[in-house]
Amino acid sequence: MLSKKSIKFVKSLQIKKYRKQEQSFLIEGKKNVDELLRSHYELHSVYVTEAFYDEYSHKLDEKTTPVFLAKESELVQMGTFKSNNSVLAVGRIPSLSLPKFGPDEIVLVLDDVRDPGNLGTILRIADWYGIRRIVASPESADFYNPKVLHASMGSFSRVQLHYTALTDFLKHSDRPVYGAMLQGENLHQTTLTSSGCFLVMGNESNGISKEVEALLTHKLTIPNYGQAESLNVAIATAVLCDNFLRQKTGN
Amino acid sequence: MLSKKSIKFVKSLQIKKYRKQEQSFLIEGKKNVDELLRSHYELHSVYVTEAFYDEYSHKLDEKTTPVFLAKESELVQMGTFKSNNSVLAVGRIPSLSLPKFGPDEIVLVLDDVRDPGNLGTILRIADWYGIRRIVASPESADFYNPKVLHASMGSFSRVQLHYTALTDFLKHSDRPVYGAMLQGENLHQTTLTSSGCFLVMGNESNGISKEVEALLTHKLTIPNYGQAESLNVAIATAVLCDNFLRQKTGN
Repeated sequence: MLSKKSIKFVKSLQIKKYRKQEQSFLIEGKKNVDELLRSHYELHSVYVTEAFYDEYSHKLDEKTTPVFLAKESELVQMGTFKSNNSVLAVGRIPSLSLPKFGPDEIVLVLDDVRDPGNLGTILRIADWYGIRRIVASPESADFYNPKVLHASMGSFSRVQLHYTALTDFLKHSDRPVYGAMLQGENLHQTTLTSSGCFLVMGNESNGISKEVEALLTHKLTIPNYGQAESLNVAIATAVLCDNFLRQKTGN
Repeated sequence: MLSKKSIKFVKSLQIKKYRKQEQSFLIEGKKNVDELLRSHYELHSVYVTEAFYDEYSHKLDEKTTPVFLAKESELVQMGTFKSNNSVLAVGRIPSLSLPKFGPDEIVLVLDDVRDPGNLGTILRIADWYGIRRIVASPESADFYNPKVLHASMGSFSRVQLHYTALTDFLKHSDRPVYGAMLQGENLHQTTLTSSGCFLVMGNESNGISKEVEALLTHKLTIPNYGQAESLNVAIATAVLCDNFLRQKTGN
């Protein structure tokens, strides 16, 4: 049985303020904890049910992280899942500085993407298309929000996200800055750069802000062949990435 | 104030069994009810808050549908939203027969897409890309599930969905049958048909079933440039549709 203090500590990490204070985050379920164990992340602690421990102990043996046996009810109490008969882990938030980008690197830029499910899905899309770095406005959803990590299906461990004020950031860049807009050049009729660039996706309701729009060098539109008014931001991100990578690889 | 009977009737439509029995469905919020009013759907009744009625009555005046004033709490009680200060409507489920498809028509085929959010998002994507008809296995999510209608952002009113046993359906077709698989031809290196075809998307966990896979004429894979194991089915649908429509329009 876990101490009340331990349960309270893990549970508190559901809230951004405490994640920041503790520089830690929680992650639930086999798939995501697996990815965490295989990643560069430092671990704080792992909580596992007795029934699941046998299957899982060999993955934990190489690590020096403390492992605690927990009841299913305790995993549910600490975490966000409605049921959890396997595992929950606490990882350390690494401190990352804004990197120097590679000459051919496509970098996603998120201008207030606020829905955690969308951000998680975007991490998974980025990971599929080999995009390793994302820059996001401070108002965007928090990377370590349990819903983001869960929706990323493990991709959180391979994609880095940096929060920064976008106008300052883009102002000092000399790379092309593409933005997904409802009124722009037809994506299917545009020759996209094969060099490094930024690809800006906007807020779910309001799209790209005026300030950021002023810094775009190219406005792109996914052509609309029907009558829907818009596409979800994660869907649009995937379509944009698919076109960039297709052209980049000469197809 | 609404009668208990009315509230019970509308609320029952959250459940598939009662939707089938009553051949009716409920829909919530301004955006979706707007689309319903503009569509070919027959209406059963509309429930609107007094505060919202003024803004909305002109849209209802052309219709002979009975309109009831309701409290916000009653809209919440009848519907699935946590809050609703505007409108809820009940529509009639039309009886559709499996259509004859146009010579150039791309038809989406869903092999057990079970998540209502995914189905709703797929309706929105289909609507964006001008795809008007979807054929789905009987085990797929129900078109009139409130979560499907909500996620479709109004596109439910422009896209038709037909449930049928897929193997029988595809067996009797002479069109190309494309399927999205993890092991198939590279989508970016494939010349896609510009004539009518079926495009099959599989179940969230298991992909396309063995029986349906046997009936595919082309297996397509979205090339993976990174390390994510898979893409969400709605994301994959969008990427496939985007490539089909781009090639179809000569880009």
